[in-house]
Amino acid sequence: MAQIEIEVKSRLDDRPALERKLRQMGARMIDDAVESDVYYDHPSRDFAKTDEALRIRMCGTKASLTYKGPKLDDKSKCREEIIVQLDDSKKAEEMLLKLGFCMVAGVRKRRRVFVWGKFEICVDRVTGLGDFFEIEVVAPKKGYEKVRDEALELLVKLGGKEPERRSYLEMLLPKQDR
Amino acid sequence: MAQIEIEVKSRLDDRPALERKLRQMGARMIDDAVESDVYYDHPSRDFAKTDEALRIRMCGTKASLTYKGPKLDDKSKCREEIIVQLDDSKKAEEMLLKLGFCMVAGVRKRRRVFVWGKFEICVDRVTGLGDFFEIEVVAPKKGYEKVRDEALELLVKLGGKEPERRSYLEMLLPKQDR
Repeated sequence: MAQIEIEVKSRLDDRPALERKLRQMGARMIDDAVESDVYYDHPSRDFAKTDEALRIRMCGTKASLTYKGPKLDDKSKCREEIIVQLDDSKKAEEMLLKLGFCMVAGVRKRRRVFVWGKFEICVDRVTGLGDFFEIEVVAPKKGYEKVRDEALELLVKLGGKEPERRSYLEMLLPKQDR
Repeated sequence: MAQIEIEVKSRLDDRPALERKLRQMGARMIDDAVESDVYYDHPSRDFAKTDEALRIRMCGTKASLTYKGPKLDDKSKCREEIIVQLDDSKKAEEMLLKLGFCMVAGVRKRRRVFVWGKFEICVDRVTGLGDFFEIEVVAPKKGYEKVRDEALELLVKLGGKEPERRSYLEMLLPKQDR
């Protein structure tokens, strides 16, 4: 069955305070890396209208191609997600351009990932946008709402504000030339 | 600089005779495997008209995505080729379908690969089409014609007939429902 990426996000004012709180709760930091994403638009669809996304992510020597389907509800950023690992991001980029996809924008961030139970908490410093934290968990499409609500509760517990439903790409786009 | 896949192909009547000849010349067999390809058409381009191709290849546990550009001349099957290795062919397939690509046809073959100098000689038994052999070599786009002519000479030396410029996909398509 299709897997849903459950994702809730908030702007973050005090990064050291959040990381202290996470450690006090027993969360473990499992990753600290710079992620560089390039987003593409479709040759014959307007992803801004269909609320889809296609991106190549480079993280160190690793590369992946991710498709994101439209958001499933109006409370969160939950959406279907398909990720394929690649051996070569440059070749994948060249292929997408040959197929008529075009680069829309880039998102670059330093991401620290903490694990707490089934949740991943990502503490992000996004170039051009500032600090955010995201709570992520993957769940089967059927009945994903229950898990989403738990993630929203955790967001509040960690001092999150009004959930930010826009992706970093959507937040950056008004600032970039399209 | 872009790499060109130089490929010349001929129908093959006597497979054991060709393989004996290759061994007498000192060619080494480096692979013997079943390759299963699925070809896709573009959401807004007719690849049959643009002479492009996009395929997912599965070979044992390995998977790759290949884009092939239009043929560069009328003597051979030389074309630009971009190959990306994937960790999961099923997810890649799912992603292509979500992006509006559609499956056109499948090609299945047993391929034995011999190496002789800079050339690879592939001895293929293609389901539904019979036996063929292909001579393959990768060369820079600039000046590829010289290497192509050497490949054509080798084809004749190995008993090849009139070079077959159609891909297995093109040869199979009239036999399959589109």
